[in-house]
Amino acid sequence: MDGNANGASSCKVVLASNVAKDLLVEVSQGLSKVGKAPLLVGFLANKDPAARKYAEWTDRTCHENGFNFELREIDREELESSILAANVDPAVDGIIVYYPIFGNRQDQYLQQCTDVSKDVEGLSHRYIFKLYHNERFLDERMTQKSLLPCTPLAVLKILDYLRVYNSILPYGNRLFGRSITVINRSETVGRPLAALLANDGACVYSVDVTGVQQFTRGTGIKKNKHEVVEKEGWGMQDCVPLSDVVIGGVPGESFKISTDLLRDGAVCINFSTEKNFETNVKDKASIYVPAIGKVTIVVLLRNLLRLVQNKQARTQQNA
Amino acid sequence: MDGNANGASSCKVVLASNVAKDLLVEVSQGLSKVGKAPLLVGFLANKDPAARKYAEWTDRTCHENGFNFELREIDREELESSILAANVDPAVDGIIVYYPIFGNRQDQYLQQCTDVSKDVEGLSHRYIFKLYHNERFLDERMTQKSLLPCTPLAVLKILDYLRVYNSILPYGNRLFGRSITVINRSETVGRPLAALLANDGACVYSVDVTGVQQFTRGTGIKKNKHEVVEKEGWGMQDCVPLSDVVIGGVPGESFKISTDLLRDGAVCINFSTEKNFETNVKDKASIYVPAIGKVTIVVLLRNLLRLVQNKQARTQQNA
Repeated sequence: MDGNANGASSCKVVLASNVAKDLLVEVSQGLSKVGKAPLLVGFLANKDPAARKYAEWTDRTCHENGFNFELREIDREELESSILAANVDPAVDGIIVYYPIFGNRQDQYLQQCTDVSKDVEGLSHRYIFKLYHNERFLDERMTQKSLLPCTPLAVLKILDYLRVYNSILPYGNRLFGRSITVINRSETVGRPLAALLANDGACVYSVDVTGVQQFTRGTGIKKNKHEVVEKEGWGMQDCVPLSDVVIGGVPGESFKISTDLLRDGAVCINFSTEKNFETNVKDKASIYVPAIGKVTIVVLLRNLLRLVQNKQARTQQNA
Repeated sequence: MDGNANGASSCKVVLASNVAKDLLVEVSQGLSKVGKAPLLVGFLANKDPAARKYAEWTDRTCHENGFNFELREIDREELESSILAANVDPAVDGIIVYYPIFGNRQDQYLQQCTDVSKDVEGLSHRYIFKLYHNERFLDERMTQKSLLPCTPLAVLKILDYLRVYNSILPYGNRLFGRSITVINRSETVGRPLAALLANDGACVYSVDVTGVQQFTRGTGIKKNKHEVVEKEGWGMQDCVPLSDVVIGGVPGESFKISTDLLRDGAVCINFSTEKNFETNVKDKASIYVPAIGKVTIVVLLRNLLRLVQNKQARTQQNA
């Protein structure tokens, strides 16, 4: 018999580890071609146990997959000069800084200190600018790909794995027809994510404490890049019921997504540490991804590999 | 650059011939295993030029793909006895009758005269009953697959080609989360199609002149087969804007689907002889399939092959 004779949940729970596995295959194939073990340097300059845990996890994942990792524990006052030294050290391929450092605007200043060519997190202004303008290469000859920030890219890779990207449509338009709510509009995750999804053709509702914004490429996705419209007076109750996909990344009760609001058969992805969905989400979702961290860390390796590939492309052009 | 610099339509037009090509590969692989050229007999007992044209097309398609076809032109008064003779003729593998014959209820009587084991159109009550009850096999040992009527099955094959079926979900639930409007609720096409889509997990709005019905397997697709609810007072203007997929199969102005009603990025499939969509449908659709006939005729061959495979399964069981 087909269907669910016992009335059990029809929701498919997809674990990030499965998505990560596919992605790791791609990364190790790329790595075998660059002919060296890239070196990632991590700077730990705070006492945050979560940061240390993430650093240890980076270390383990690097070494398990043929990358080198070196953790440099320093005082935060030395951080800027240490980053600048690493920027010009030819042995260093990538740099990651474990934030927060000062917990204020100075952290954004520090973020821009890492050289673009070594910014494994893809948070340099140049990368983010390319992202918002839907430009995928750093150079006109299209030999060096622009990097994307790790968490947004991890979400994209998950949506691709889940076939939310429709591969029958042309590359760049594969989300055309999908409506997606993103709960979180931070500068490092939610806003770039909404822009990436809209640039790929989706109608995106971006939700944060200030309200709802709609990101689209216009009717019939006729525009080259997304544009943003304020949805005055809208809240989650207005956009979640319209969405095929709901991506939650804000902890706390006030942003918890009520299962009642979900469209039957919605694809639900949680990237918040505290779950953004109610425990009964599986009663309505067709697919539920409870966490994405294991994909994010592989995306970090993929970005590191890309930095090495871009460097090789520059060397070849200068040769 | 990505996107559409010139503001051109982003709609991908998918021709039935491309879908048919993939399906033909599958059919010829199956045919090579049955070890004989199956014989389809067509009965033409009217003067309808469309029926003759379809018969000639069946003939050509059969012969181009390793099947035998024999057209028997007879008087309509002889049709019943001719069908009964073909039913018991071991040389005949499949029977197709080109309707209309009398153009009234007697045609439905004649439809049930073709033996189930030779009904290539899948319109026998036994097949249709299985379809509505979401049962996929004729026998408990699951060796003989139940046939599906050609046009609805052609639409399913097209939706599969277009990745509207999500292959990451379990077989039988792959339309969970999709909303689909079907314009047409005939007993041979629209109603079985709505049931098949809902049985596969979709939320289906079935539209005809009497109104709108919703076919679903309930919230969370917890039921084994679809159930039907009348949507009192609803029209196309209520269900088309909610639909990811719109399937049009009713000629005439009053059922023409206004492009304004379409959800941006909808998948639009026309199976009506007269187009059910406005000429500007490509301004909003992500995918448009203008006609499906070339898939339907291959599905007919696939059904013929299935009849032969089912016969072989019965022979093996009796051996």
